[in-house]
Amino acid sequence: MPSPPPAWVQALKPAGPQGSELLQQERAQSNINVDKLAEHLHGRETLDTQDRLVKLLSSEKVFDKAENHTSGRTERIQRALARGKRLQQLSEKNNWSKEEYHMANDLIGEPTPYGLHASMFLVTLREQGTPEQHKLFLERAEKYQIIGCYAQTELGHGSNVRGLETRATWNPEDQTFTIHSPTLTASKWWIGSLGRNANHAVVMAQLYVGGKNYGPHPFVVNIRDMETHQPLENIYVGDIGPKFGYNTMDNGFLLFNHVKIPHVNMLARFCSIDKATNKYMRPASPSLVYGTMTWVRSNIVLNAGGVLAQGVTIATRYCAVRRQFQDRDATGNVGENQVLNYKMVQIRLLPLLASMYALHFTGKGMMRLYEENQARMKGNAVSDQEQRGPGPEQLRAGADLLADLHATSCGLKALASTTAGEGLEVCRRACGGHGYSSFSGIGPWYADYLPTLTWEGDNYMLTQQVARYLLKSARAVLDGKGTQNDTSRILQAYLARREKGASFDILSEDSDIVAAFAWRTAHLTFEALKLRDVEKRSWNSLLVDFWRLSTAHSQYLVVKNFYEAVSSEQLAAGLDPETRTLMYKLFRLYALHTMEREGAEFFASSAVTTRQLRLTQENAVMKLLDEVRPHAVSLVDAWKIPDWKLDSSLGRYDGEVYPDLFRRAAQNPVNDLVFDPYPWNEAVLKNSQPKSKL
Amino acid sequence: MPSPPPAWVQALKPAGPQGSELLQQERAQSNINVDKLAEHLHGRETLDTQDRLVKLLSSEKVFDKAENHTSGRTERIQRALARGKRLQQLSEKNNWSKEEYHMANDLIGEPTPYGLHASMFLVTLREQGTPEQHKLFLERAEKYQIIGCYAQTELGHGSNVRGLETRATWNPEDQTFTIHSPTLTASKWWIGSLGRNANHAVVMAQLYVGGKNYGPHPFVVNIRDMETHQPLENIYVGDIGPKFGYNTMDNGFLLFNHVKIPHVNMLARFCSIDKATNKYMRPASPSLVYGTMTWVRSNIVLNAGGVLAQGVTIATRYCAVRRQFQDRDATGNVGENQVLNYKMVQIRLLPLLASMYALHFTGKGMMRLYEENQARMKGNAVSDQEQRGPGPEQLRAGADLLADLHATSCGLKALASTTAGEGLEVCRRACGGHGYSSFSGIGPWYADYLPTLTWEGDNYMLTQQVARYLLKSARAVLDGKGTQNDTSRILQAYLARREKGASFDILSEDSDIVAAFAWRTAHLTFEALKLRDVEKRSWNSLLVDFWRLSTAHSQYLVVKNFYEAVSSEQLAAGLDPETRTLMYKLFRLYALHTMEREGAEFFASSAVTTRQLRLTQENAVMKLLDEVRPHAVSLVDAWKIPDWKLDSSLGRYDGEVYPDLFRRAAQNPVNDLVFDPYPWNEAVLKNSQPKSKL
Repeated sequence: MPSPPPAWVQALKPAGPQGSELLQQERAQSNINVDKLAEHLHGRETLDTQDRLVKLLSSEKVFDKAENHTSGRTERIQRALARGKRLQQLSEKNNWSKEEYHMANDLIGEPTPYGLHASMFLVTLREQGTPEQHKLFLERAEKYQIIGCYAQTELGHGSNVRGLETRATWNPEDQTFTIHSPTLTASKWWIGSLGRNANHAVVMAQLYVGGKNYGPHPFVVNIRDMETHQPLENIYVGDIGPKFGYNTMDNGFLLFNHVKIPHVNMLARFCSIDKATNKYMRPASPSLVYGTMTWVRSNIVLNAGGVLAQGVTIATRYCAVRRQFQDRDATGNVGENQVLNYKMVQIRLLPLLASMYALHFTGKGMMRLYEENQARMKGNAVSDQEQRGPGPEQLRAGADLLADLHATSCGLKALASTTAGEGLEVCRRACGGHGYSSFSGIGPWYADYLPTLTWEGDNYMLTQQVARYLLKSARAVLDGKGTQNDTSRILQAYLARREKGASFDILSEDSDIVAAFAWRTAHLTFEALKLRDVEKRSWNSLLVDFWRLSTAHSQYLVVKNFYEAVSSEQLAAGLDPETRTLMYKLFRLYALHTMEREGAEFFASSAVTTRQLRLTQENAVMKLLDEVRPHAVSLVDAWKIPDWKLDSSLGRYDGEVYPDLFRRAAQNPVNDLVFDPYPWNEAVLKNSQPKSKL
Repeated sequence: MPSPPPAWVQALKPAGPQGSELLQQERAQSNINVDKLAEHLHGRETLDTQDRLVKLLSSEKVFDKAENHTSGRTERIQRALARGKRLQQLSEKNNWSKEEYHMANDLIGEPTPYGLHASMFLVTLREQGTPEQHKLFLERAEKYQIIGCYAQTELGHGSNVRGLETRATWNPEDQTFTIHSPTLTASKWWIGSLGRNANHAVVMAQLYVGGKNYGPHPFVVNIRDMETHQPLENIYVGDIGPKFGYNTMDNGFLLFNHVKIPHVNMLARFCSIDKATNKYMRPASPSLVYGTMTWVRSNIVLNAGGVLAQGVTIATRYCAVRRQFQDRDATGNVGENQVLNYKMVQIRLLPLLASMYALHFTGKGMMRLYEENQARMKGNAVSDQEQRGPGPEQLRAGADLLADLHATSCGLKALASTTAGEGLEVCRRACGGHGYSSFSGIGPWYADYLPTLTWEGDNYMLTQQVARYLLKSARAVLDGKGTQNDTSRILQAYLARREKGASFDILSEDSDIVAAFAWRTAHLTFEALKLRDVEKRSWNSLLVDFWRLSTAHSQYLVVKNFYEAVSSEQLAAGLDPETRTLMYKLFRLYALHTMEREGAEFFASSAVTTRQLRLTQENAVMKLLDEVRPHAVSLVDAWKIPDWKLDSSLGRYDGEVYPDLFRRAAQNPVNDLVFDPYPWNEAVLKNSQPKSKL
């Protein structure tokens, strides 16, 4: 490590006012109760657990973050494995719950090579395995005796699961499966935890029985020796190399050369091969599988709020500390202005601040709906066997809600992760030059988050599923077969009022804002339906319309969920009147700013008039920026992201931005090098030999 | 390096059709003459030089790119210095011109620690030094005996140059300057080539003479010993640490503790201290300094086209090779569809393809205007001394054009670099999951490019300068004092026709498209003027309007330049009719797609009707996508970016995407590690000791 700076440097302070003074001032000017708001958002218990875990983790040298951004990939991934191991040890020692383990994993701030073992591998074994398979695989996996991964995507096949090339052929003669990769593009690819770590994989492969293809199914395959950890015969496996982010994860590739596995290795809770008849047994209850994806996507929506909050916290605090230029209309020497006072900064940051609240409440709402429905469906599953539980009408309502939830979760996953991913880059740029430093904490976080926009359904692909569902619902409504769910309701409401027109009062009635968003969705749905069903336009020619439609629908859902949250009894009970009023303002800021950005669609659907749009832009949004501005720092404080997690000079709670940036810069290992700067000397360092190997 | 894959893996091929076949098919279906178009874009000589340099550079081990994305920062920066040295040696040996040196630097694909020496340091010495100073500093710097940097930005001061804290105080008693950093925030920061490499710096410091502040001026300061390369006394200098990109550059910090430098070290071509009187001598011709920034920004506009072209080339070729899903309306088993056939991919990629051409032609147009005017101004400078040259009217026209060019270059710099930066991320995502791999070649390129959105004027800050200029022009036009430049003309044209209305025929007349963009700029200008001058709104409250105005004006300029280029005699002479027609289509695609995205503003200004907008969206743009699609691969081929520069598995000219991805993955150094995957073993690698230091 470089030697400490000389005394005259150590004596220097930033020009005043100090960052700590500016943040104190920010906190003093807002009357909202930050702790109470934090509790309302996250719950007391979660906040306490977080404090406890940060204390524990930050005291261990292995979790020290100082070298995260300077090491090469081989060093980083080894350190990540060491962290993963320590985390698992701590988890056993302290008897952590699943929630505690995942929170600890989040706090250390980067993926470890156990990531996909601890999530998709265990989940798949649990949900798709039989009791026999649980004993054989799951129990050992939970003890980390088996380390696994979930191998679906292939080199040539991502979104289109039906296009997978890996084959599992049933051999009736010895009652085994042969797993085989017929081509190079059949290689499994991008599989987290596979590259160097896993000794088992759940492999999705096309099942062939008696020459017939039954589509992709999951198989457990042992891929590395349990002792030597070398790949087993006829298996070629490795790490796929460096990435834009996520470099502490060993995303891997995997090829099979006619590898035999026993009958019991096909995960058989829903489908199986009958050993007596050598016949394929059909899925019992596919809707439960359907449910897992919905759960994963709902989680992405909820997390998106927290991911974005990290960037907004950093940018908001730093823009309150950073000062640049005097206000152009100010007279006399009033000093430089806090950057957060500039409208051009506010219009970029404050709607994102509102978005992180919006996504949080939307995610919570989605999870609640999902869990209610799962409970109901479980009732169904029981009733299948035991002949009791809800009647057929309730069953139909449950299936109907699940279809709605599935489509909803697709669109919201796309909108939420795009908002968070792109929002982080907006936050980074709002920090000016220093946003580009790794010490800002935003860049590495953004780079690690970006895959979320592609995995669990590419954000553009997913919008087709939403559109398909909306078109189907619209056809049903037109046929008088609409259901009781929200989608049917907004389509029906639109049809009922279409002739009279909308005439929403978006500038004074909050519920009319929600109605205007619903109206636009319904309008775009029936427009798209006309193009598809009446004008018989090709599906491909409508993809752009579908993407717009899905975005519109998802924005409606966020606005609706946000509105329901801010007008809920729970919020009224938990928060003082000032904070509640502020939550309403955040709702309005999110909704009206979105409406302004999508103005052309709102206008074209006659949901609002051009005059309303102009007033929204010129008055309402600008006024909301003024009203939210004094509370900006408190609103990010309430998210309670610990400094240790932020790992950011710019976003420190205490505002001591410049001393921290300086300290980290001075200590960075590049400062141990003494260059020989002259081009005629081959050696790049003083007193070293030329790097002839380069 | 990991051992090669077993024979059964080496025998595998991708599922057909092969990438090479698909790209052949693409090239066969387009009738444009790629080589002729390439020559029109870049010139035969430039293309020949590029071929020659690629051959030379790619044969040298030091420029091998294989480990660029896996090494840690200390290794990378040493390798970058070795590359910089070799480049300089080759330059001397082969007697390269400045253009050849810069092209070679571009081809190696990453910055070197000589970057700012070779650009801003030399330029500043050349432009702001006296003949005596050229002899003392510039001549040695050109021979790399002095290695320098340009130290302006400070830890607490970026955009606001007047806010710099570093001081240079004139000492009349011994006729020296004292350079001093009074605070921590006065530390120079982000200075390229400073961190480890430079032994001199041009330091921008507030000049104090007799207690009075004369604002920031440039001083040459020796900061490291010419032999030992250790920092000189009372100087604290180092590297600022890891960044989102640009990690092969040693961006540095620098603090001074009352360091004395002689009188001759203040760069004195324009301003100086008179030794006889100890008085400050005022700038002779500030407009020439003004010109340098215009030149730098015009260059950014021109480069932006090429930067974006790299991403579009990669994404277009890969989307022609990648196939995913069968077309939903297709009957029978027709196989998976090329991703590039999907409208949702086309709407993202093809307007960017049009943008890279638009920016290229705009940059060329700007440079031409700039050079014409520089030639005229040089005539002026001579006339000051020798009493000949253009008369006062021509002088006024020159200054007027310079002011117009300055404002134009600010707005275009912001629009062009935002388009390129954000466009690269769109290209990366259009590549699906593989876009995230470093082997896509897009991520690292994007990360290194992003600072361009912040430096040489933050893209948001710059828009104020454009707005200020437009308001000033509008006031002059209203007062009947408009000039002959284009800005005055479009404002006058708007006023003359405002009452009658616009009625442009954007769907059939190309010149009317340009006129509609001009109309929208003029409309927004007079709207903003009313808010500022009549309604007396604060400057801060108008920043968002100003940003919109600047964006609108810059889009107009791109559309105008693109239109002039495609309808020019030069293009008619250089290209066959088919290619010319295609260039018109690219122009229309860029213009109409932009118009559609900014629909609300075009409608609100009455430049177009809602019906026209709907037809633009539903018909015109979709039809242009169909028409451009067959030529997409040829249009990126014409950019002639060598594979060695792209450094991308996905963007290879031959389309052999999957074998190349596989080869690079298998060889990546993480595959040399054998993990011990069990959490109860402390060691992370098999047969190694636990990493107790972690």
